[in-house]
Amino acid sequence: MNDYSEKGLLPAGLADMLPPAARQESAISETLMRVFGANGYLQVTPPLIEFEEHLLEGSGAALASKMFRVMDPVSHRMMGIRTDITLQVARIATTRMKQDPRPLRLSYTGQVLRVHGSQLRPERQFAQAGVELIGSTETTADAELILLVREALIALEIEEFTLDLTLPNLVPTICKELGIDPDTAKSAREALDHKDAAELTKYDPELSSILTALLKAAGPASQALDALAEIDLPHQAGQQIEELRQLVIHLADAAPGLELTIDPGEYRGFEYQTGLSFTVFARNVRGELGRGGRYLLMDGEPASGFTLFLDSLMRAVPRHVTSDRLYVPFGTKLDQCQGLRKEGWKTIVGLSPESNVNDEAQRLHCSHVYHADGIQKIS
Amino acid sequence: MNDYSEKGLLPAGLADMLPPAARQESAISETLMRVFGANGYLQVTPPLIEFEEHLLEGSGAALASKMFRVMDPVSHRMMGIRTDITLQVARIATTRMKQDPRPLRLSYTGQVLRVHGSQLRPERQFAQAGVELIGSTETTADAELILLVREALIALEIEEFTLDLTLPNLVPTICKELGIDPDTAKSAREALDHKDAAELTKYDPELSSILTALLKAAGPASQALDALAEIDLPHQAGQQIEELRQLVIHLADAAPGLELTIDPGEYRGFEYQTGLSFTVFARNVRGELGRGGRYLLMDGEPASGFTLFLDSLMRAVPRHVTSDRLYVPFGTKLDQCQGLRKEGWKTIVGLSPESNVNDEAQRLHCSHVYHADGIQKIS
Repeated sequence: MNDYSEKGLLPAGLADMLPPAARQESAISETLMRVFGANGYLQVTPPLIEFEEHLLEGSGAALASKMFRVMDPVSHRMMGIRTDITLQVARIATTRMKQDPRPLRLSYTGQVLRVHGSQLRPERQFAQAGVELIGSTETTADAELILLVREALIALEIEEFTLDLTLPNLVPTICKELGIDPDTAKSAREALDHKDAAELTKYDPELSSILTALLKAAGPASQALDALAEIDLPHQAGQQIEELRQLVIHLADAAPGLELTIDPGEYRGFEYQTGLSFTVFARNVRGELGRGGRYLLMDGEPASGFTLFLDSLMRAVPRHVTSDRLYVPFGTKLDQCQGLRKEGWKTIVGLSPESNVNDEAQRLHCSHVYHADGIQKIS
Repeated sequence: MNDYSEKGLLPAGLADMLPPAARQESAISETLMRVFGANGYLQVTPPLIEFEEHLLEGSGAALASKMFRVMDPVSHRMMGIRTDITLQVARIATTRMKQDPRPLRLSYTGQVLRVHGSQLRPERQFAQAGVELIGSTETTADAELILLVREALIALEIEEFTLDLTLPNLVPTICKELGIDPDTAKSAREALDHKDAAELTKYDPELSSILTALLKAAGPASQALDALAEIDLPHQAGQQIEELRQLVIHLADAAPGLELTIDPGEYRGFEYQTGLSFTVFARNVRGELGRGGRYLLMDGEPASGFTLFLDSLMRAVPRHVTSDRLYVPFGTKLDQCQGLRKEGWKTIVGLSPESNVNDEAQRLHCSHVYHADGIQKIS
């Protein structure tokens, strides 16, 4: 009648999340939203699909090739399935919440879909959760976000993580101040990002010397800041480094154990960021846990935010084996069952008389059995 | 540069959920998953899109016209965006979880999309949460589900609700046992569902008399059961009524205050149900809160389940005004802020020195201000 093996087949990059993973993902999302909420971030939930031109505006254009499109039979206009939630939250901040007082703190969690997976993230559907802090240019705003990432990861019991800080706009600023032409500036930026030391020597001597020094400066934050201080940078670039230094001082004061590195030339994946940005990694976990940084809303308002990827977080979160599945024999009164649930048990209630209660409990993968004279652990 | 009023425009039936609604919806979903989990239901999360033929198999065919379709550039096959999660969970139960012991208890929560809204539910995207109980034909399974709906609604502080029980297969069974031809059977079923008393008299006298009696029997459960007991039904139909009676006795015993009604001829919206089904309503709330019932998996395995609609639940859940937004002045130490959050405050921390702390707190819609000498309520 039906080919069940085929029925189980899903398109590449899409998967059924089974127990206990599905529950774990939900729990991670709940924890994040609780931590974000406790820090004053208000949750918004944009729709999964909307008119494609709104999803592709501004920095969204970069995601065009990743977006599924569907025709809306109601409006006869094309709609897109979101590939990212940040831009939708930014849209909300500039439209329906334009009148709300700044700084505006918003949070979100939800699924995104992409036409193609990437090498590092082959999944075509995954959950994101994050925040946007809108309307402040203060370094304290960047610090708040980084400390919020830290608080969220600690709440998830992820203890060993690193924050890699970058200034995606640093090299473009230097080149502009040195009067370098745009093509050369672009190639210089790429060469530094690729850490191509040989290539970096091929530019105008002043630029080459700065780029080579920036390359060498990358590393643990305090060490990197010392190296950056030695570089003779043009004014605006120097200011960016000074702000970075202020941020690192602030963070070291607030959270002394926080592991920070600086890679001043990195910009891939931060194409629409306009200032301090960061990536979060966990020790021994494939893929980044999240990323964030400064950007501008469509109307020029300053903003900063970060997104955490729930699939990466699931690989980083410690697993706890629970033993709270309690078999409750057939015929047990509802009041009794509810009492056990209130105590924290997950009750599995018999639907028909058992020939052997303990065997039935074991068959249903329960850890404990409820008997009139008490709860018994299953060996 | 951009038309912001237009930017806020979303396709009909799709909406941004803003504060506090978005948080409220998440909280409802969390509460439901907690209650389902405490009752032994294991969460699964199927993908938002999958090959369309799997979404359209069996009873899914009824949803074909409601489904958005996209081409998968990887497999060059058509995929559909799910319009319902029940069928996906049923697919998981018959494939990847086929070897898991029965009864299998699964739960889910997630978004679904529909090409067109309906008159009662104009939304084209909405969240569902529900459970499936797979592999049992016992009346205790139906009872477990109904009591679980009750437990979930009570956990959501929805006190005034009604469960309307129906037997969508009753009239077809009667007609088959009386040897009525399929076309007449179909029209008789529709006439009863439409409560068309005049039409009901036009059939074979025995059938007409039964249908008229069924129509009159609809009402509060105990009264309806008395009326149904008076009807001279063929054997199998009589058995269905007997099972319904057993269920009502079980429910009245377990949850005496539960408000139950019976409408034995209703079947619209239960086209793929094969046995006892139900709809849940809340007093003074537009639209049903949820519905459920018995059905068969693709491989013939018996199952029963229910789905709750989060948009309807949001209209039914009482609103609580919270006053826990605490403004924390610029420069307050992180430890201090974290301590306040642990106490349950939602902290909004100043990013720059305030000229007047209380004014700033008020501007940011905070209910309280933190001062070194204590927490002050904002008048």
